[in-house]
Amino acid sequence: MLIVEKYGGTSVGDVDRIKNVALRVKKGLDQGHRMVVVVSARSGVTNELIARAKAITPEPDEREMDMLLTVGEQETIALTTMALHALGVPAVSRTGHRAGFRTDGNHLRARIKEISGGDIHEQLEQGKVVVVAGFQGSSPEGEITTMGRGGSDLSAIALAQGLGADLCRINTDVDGVYTADPRIVPDARKLDELHYEEMLELASSGSKVMQSRAVEFASKFNVPFEVRSSFNDNPGTIVKEEVASMEDILVNGVAVDKNQARIGVGNLPDRPGAAAKVFQSLSAAGVLVDMIVQNIGSEGRANITFTVPKDDVFKAEKALSLALAEFEGAYAKTIGDIAKVSVVGLGMRSHSGVAATLFEALAEAGINIEMITTSEIKISVGIKPAQADDAVRVAHGAFNLGES
Amino acid sequence: MLIVEKYGGTSVGDVDRIKNVALRVKKGLDQGHRMVVVVSARSGVTNELIARAKAITPEPDEREMDMLLTVGEQETIALTTMALHALGVPAVSRTGHRAGFRTDGNHLRARIKEISGGDIHEQLEQGKVVVVAGFQGSSPEGEITTMGRGGSDLSAIALAQGLGADLCRINTDVDGVYTADPRIVPDARKLDELHYEEMLELASSGSKVMQSRAVEFASKFNVPFEVRSSFNDNPGTIVKEEVASMEDILVNGVAVDKNQARIGVGNLPDRPGAAAKVFQSLSAAGVLVDMIVQNIGSEGRANITFTVPKDDVFKAEKALSLALAEFEGAYAKTIGDIAKVSVVGLGMRSHSGVAATLFEALAEAGINIEMITTSEIKISVGIKPAQADDAVRVAHGAFNLGES
Repeated sequence: MLIVEKYGGTSVGDVDRIKNVALRVKKGLDQGHRMVVVVSARSGVTNELIARAKAITPEPDEREMDMLLTVGEQETIALTTMALHALGVPAVSRTGHRAGFRTDGNHLRARIKEISGGDIHEQLEQGKVVVVAGFQGSSPEGEITTMGRGGSDLSAIALAQGLGADLCRINTDVDGVYTADPRIVPDARKLDELHYEEMLELASSGSKVMQSRAVEFASKFNVPFEVRSSFNDNPGTIVKEEVASMEDILVNGVAVDKNQARIGVGNLPDRPGAAAKVFQSLSAAGVLVDMIVQNIGSEGRANITFTVPKDDVFKAEKALSLALAEFEGAYAKTIGDIAKVSVVGLGMRSHSGVAATLFEALAEAGINIEMITTSEIKISVGIKPAQADDAVRVAHGAFNLGES
Repeated sequence: MLIVEKYGGTSVGDVDRIKNVALRVKKGLDQGHRMVVVVSARSGVTNELIARAKAITPEPDEREMDMLLTVGEQETIALTTMALHALGVPAVSRTGHRAGFRTDGNHLRARIKEISGGDIHEQLEQGKVVVVAGFQGSSPEGEITTMGRGGSDLSAIALAQGLGADLCRINTDVDGVYTADPRIVPDARKLDELHYEEMLELASSGSKVMQSRAVEFASKFNVPFEVRSSFNDNPGTIVKEEVASMEDILVNGVAVDKNQARIGVGNLPDRPGAAAKVFQSLSAAGVLVDMIVQNIGSEGRANITFTVPKDDVFKAEKALSLALAEFEGAYAKTIGDIAKVSVVGLGMRSHSGVAATLFEALAEAGINIEMITTSEIKISVGIKPAQADDAVRVAHGAFNLGES
């Protein structure tokens, strides 16, 4: 098999961990696989570099930031390759540019255009392990670019697709994807497999195992991948298109996001385009809106309540004050912090029993639901942040997600 | 004027020093010059990277070392460019590869083949300062290479030549080239100008202001350069082909090298090829032989005494024991540490008075001369290391090199 695997910043955090990564890669090789390894910068390095840049100028040029930040992964590919050599494993390093990561020219948030893989297949033919710098690529003008936070996951999955790999492994500091955060729910269970959509919902709801962008790419190009630990050999969670248990299990996990604030927009004319105008203004300001609830109020005026990341509240208020100016009497108001608890599972929408079970269990525990949104595979409730952990435990228990 | 200037690791050692470099570059720009800046890695960074590599494997692959080490300069070009931006100066960074440094494929000690400058002239036309990573280039295969210690000086001088610059400035942590080390000779005087050859002799005799290789390149392609301080605006020392005072001053400086050991080879047959065999073996072992003295001993057997860097003694002994095996009765013996004190000046050879003055002054000071070698522009004596500083002061005084 051709395996592309990724090790994040914690997994290559120091010299000993890098040696450990090399041992693991060698194990794959000894099992007869061809191995391509995507690595991140050592944990902390990127933040150190950013701090140095900010100490020079509060708004560093984005091109120069990319020139600066790519240094982190370049160090790791060299050290990891040396560690493989030390084990007698033939290996060679490749920067993002030489691994054929072609991106657009948007520095710090470049989007992948094409992955040629450069000469990686050739190197593999020669029996070498190829160690690739994650997070980075190059623009049509030959400028060094980076893909933003979580870019190394994306690099690995995109490279697996570009090379036609048989498997992509995302090695991380957790054993896989759990039914809930084990720090909140002691009997949370590791999932054997998961559909892309479920993974996306769990990730975007705060189970920050992987960045959504990488999962979206995997889903779009149907790249199966395994999330597993860098520090042991336990089987992880396979994320893919066809999931064996698809028809049986309704709820696969409970996620929580405590980082949201709730904003209400009131007295909006209930006519086509008014709500659109509100959300266009937020989108233009770069605010990520999550849950949205709309009611029709009195006299044909609408009220909309939605949540945004806490950090975006100021931006959102600024955007709204401009956007609402044209609607007489309309106002926006930040209501306060809110926690979002979501139960996620393929096909749950067709089983209204899921919603009933969730609402009933929360009610019994004395937890008041302030907002509700649903999607094909998720039901989310907005509740008081202080009750969030309780709500996760209650939901986890209500759907019998614990160890069997 | 088009000025290429170089700032070494100490000059860009931290964020504040990088800001200081930017201020100095801006000053050049404000004076109407076009500026290209070559920078090294922050001091300490290269050693940290080497230490990390050595912690992984005692003999890291040279290609991967280059991948690793070039990270240091890449960080500095980005930070320096940001610092220029912060002052409102348009600037752009260039890696060695993009600055068109083409080298051979010898990793860690690549030799320059050609400097195209990439698009540097274009960027200068647009009014930008171009910040170039020293020490690095790329091979015909597109591999990242480095040029070895002192490579940033070489980068600056070679780039000045490649771009047809009007001046090359080597900014360093000393004010210029002195008649002797001011820590040894309190009244040592800064030289206004110096010929390439003199600079070479002073550098290779231990006044480690610059690496010989960079001076050799400057001499070969006739690139005038100025050695001056990064931390003040004092005029430095101009090193060039035509020196105004060439006919007047015989001795320009006194240098000392305390890092040598003396080896004797005895009872060697005095026939063609015997001495050659000895020095070929040392050269093949990578030992840098410095002073060489040969006497004909009794019965047509030769004795050769020479000096090597202390660190090379073991290598030298190993090479000699093999090389001498074919000469019956010949032996090698490490005699001990020796210090080399040199007086340097253009045209001194034709004035035998220089040697006489030096020997007499040393004799008067009770300093015994154990070896003597001479070149066109230098007389060196080997003496006991404990007397080295005294010898420098005595020679400096004997030629009236102090402040006038």
